[in-house]
Amino acid sequence: MADELPVSPLAPEAFPEMPHVRGVRLGTAATAMKYQGRDDLMLAEMPSGASVAGVFTTSKTASAPVDWCRKALSGGEALGLLVNAGNANAFTGQAGIASVEACVEAVADLLSCRPSRIFVASTGVIGEPLPHDRIVEELNAIRQGMTDSGPEKWSNAAGAIMTTDTFPKGSTRIARIGDSEVTLAGIAKGSGMIAPDMATMLSFIFTDARLPADTLQALLADAVDKSFNAITVDSDTSTSDTVMLFATGMASVQPEADGPGDPLLDDFKAKLGEVTADLAQQIVRDGEGASKFVSITVTGAENEAAARRIGLAIGNSPLVKTAVAGEDANWGRIVMAVGKAGERADRDRMAITIGGVTIAENGAAIDGYDERPVAEHMKGTDIEILVDVGVGDGAATVWTCDLTHGYISINADYRS
Amino acid sequence: MADELPVSPLAPEAFPEMPHVRGVRLGTAATAMKYQGRDDLMLAEMPSGASVAGVFTTSKTASAPVDWCRKALSGGEALGLLVNAGNANAFTGQAGIASVEACVEAVADLLSCRPSRIFVASTGVIGEPLPHDRIVEELNAIRQGMTDSGPEKWSNAAGAIMTTDTFPKGSTRIARIGDSEVTLAGIAKGSGMIAPDMATMLSFIFTDARLPADTLQALLADAVDKSFNAITVDSDTSTSDTVMLFATGMASVQPEADGPGDPLLDDFKAKLGEVTADLAQQIVRDGEGASKFVSITVTGAENEAAARRIGLAIGNSPLVKTAVAGEDANWGRIVMAVGKAGERADRDRMAITIGGVTIAENGAAIDGYDERPVAEHMKGTDIEILVDVGVGDGAATVWTCDLTHGYISINADYRS
Repeated sequence: MADELPVSPLAPEAFPEMPHVRGVRLGTAATAMKYQGRDDLMLAEMPSGASVAGVFTTSKTASAPVDWCRKALSGGEALGLLVNAGNANAFTGQAGIASVEACVEAVADLLSCRPSRIFVASTGVIGEPLPHDRIVEELNAIRQGMTDSGPEKWSNAAGAIMTTDTFPKGSTRIARIGDSEVTLAGIAKGSGMIAPDMATMLSFIFTDARLPADTLQALLADAVDKSFNAITVDSDTSTSDTVMLFATGMASVQPEADGPGDPLLDDFKAKLGEVTADLAQQIVRDGEGASKFVSITVTGAENEAAARRIGLAIGNSPLVKTAVAGEDANWGRIVMAVGKAGERADRDRMAITIGGVTIAENGAAIDGYDERPVAEHMKGTDIEILVDVGVGDGAATVWTCDLTHGYISINADYRS
Repeated sequence: MADELPVSPLAPEAFPEMPHVRGVRLGTAATAMKYQGRDDLMLAEMPSGASVAGVFTTSKTASAPVDWCRKALSGGEALGLLVNAGNANAFTGQAGIASVEACVEAVADLLSCRPSRIFVASTGVIGEPLPHDRIVEELNAIRQGMTDSGPEKWSNAAGAIMTTDTFPKGSTRIARIGDSEVTLAGIAKGSGMIAPDMATMLSFIFTDARLPADTLQALLADAVDKSFNAITVDSDTSTSDTVMLFATGMASVQPEADGPGDPLLDDFKAKLGEVTADLAQQIVRDGEGASKFVSITVTGAENEAAARRIGLAIGNSPLVKTAVAGEDANWGRIVMAVGKAGERADRDRMAITIGGVTIAENGAAIDGYDERPVAEHMKGTDIEILVDVGVGDGAATVWTCDLTHGYISINADYRS
């Protein structure tokens, strides 16, 4: 499927030049379990002592790999990460659990460590048994081809985890911790938010910083809240959504931080936030059928969480999304979506601004509002919506895309 | 818009033959405020002493007419109901409140009663001031043309409240209360669930039973829960959704019921449930762009409310709805939707049946499952999905339609 679709018109110009993250080795291979002529399996190897954090789907029917990772996370240490594309190993009953165990044990053998140090993720069709023998068969070959991470390796890894994605997704930053420079490099996949059969959201971020697992977990949870949890393509939640952060500790001497709140980590936090926001936005830019990238900022809410919920209600509304697709500055539908979010909003103090032009304030359309600059803005590919709901100081930004005939074509006309 | 769209392929064959409800008089008129060449205003008159119940949108940005009705409902008595189509009087600030007052006072004058006995509803574009003078001007003409309710009057009233609807919606039943026969007659409008600018859901049900307002309210709330609250077209919530039940008390001598739980009301309750379910399903059958009517029954949930929430999560999922449009029995997407509902479900005990054929049980696809009869069922217009989530005895049914190119065309290609 992936190679039949044209690249999204909202894609970045090129995959970024991503540097080596000290301690991370990468390899990819092709199992041909679904896709032909491309890699669909990636293995990352970390040095002994690397710490790990993870955030997983809230789905009550999470996949077997997600169950495994949640359990393994309690150890706080990771030596290997194995990801395959083409089969999600979800809703596969007892066989699915056995497949995870088979993969994990094979990687643990290969890397000579305990199975609980190995993490796995699967994405692709659901409800079909994972042909894990094909994965295990490729492990030796992958190992032999593994090298230190670097531009080509990152690009290959990002490509190997794609399903309906139309472009590989990567992001990198350098952060300072005290006098030390550390590197962050992340890859992601996902294009419908988030179809379990083909378009689960996965993201893996690596750093050579030295950070204990509990600090890493707090930093990741916060970053995910403002990035991957602030995007929506179609409001659907995969059984397999997974975001993980690995820290090898191989950067040059680095001062010890005193927990996630230590100001020493401020720059690392900021850069981690940039990497996760960049990757999350790339997923939206690859939204199935997307023709416009929409940024929705909500202010004046009771608090930040309320602002995000209102923003997501707007971003999830099929009526708002189809209006954007139709280049129609239909603020009535935005008001409707604010109302259904269930958060406090003062109807008679609301204000709505699109593309920098205020359309409504104090709960009514502005007298003599000139529609022309707004209509011009709606014709572009990047749409900016600001909503003030008039009750407090809470603010948040969420990102989404429009809902087009392309989405219907990909999900209805195409028979999986 | 309404008259440009072809009638939904899922529409009933004809508007039902609806009898007179004793005490109810109906009239319609054309204000031409938006639609040309059709009635867009209806007035219902009830006798002194008629009781009333209402259920309104949960939107935090409810329209001025909804605010008015909520307040007036505390009196428990209704003498008049005025409904206009073409302008929703929503997000119109102080002017909107003044418009409601102007309409209500004019109707109260006409019917010689207190304003608090008059109920109003408006549906159509939002954010534009309601030209209430045009409504007030038509009131005398409407009054002169008013007659007892009956087949033609019901059909006219149902037509006058339409916006993007492609067919008028009505339903009627006879119920027994003791030895007495009472009549129920209801009309509804709505076609996108539920666009505030054009497709708010409104329903008005009338009966000649004699029931106090508090009993009526309890009966209506229960019926709405299992009907209007069990349907979804696109998960959007209007600022104006309104369901009201009026009881004139003009049926022949009828025994007094002792509250809503009295077994004397069992048949009335059942018939009210049939009328509301019939009207709710007609709204789904007129879903924007709908080509298939989907009935989703969830069993094995923790309780009835949990079952309904899981059903709505399935019915709201764009991925499930596009799969149905594509005639694809994609049970993986159903599992995904169950997971995102946030209610308890046992992944490894789940079972899914489509069109009477069990596809998956105990959390995995059935061995040697024959896809052919299911594929045949998916080609029909009425799709039946059964999901058992394996944790309890809670059950509920919800109704939805598929998500097609037609929905995108109506909401994106058409510029309001």
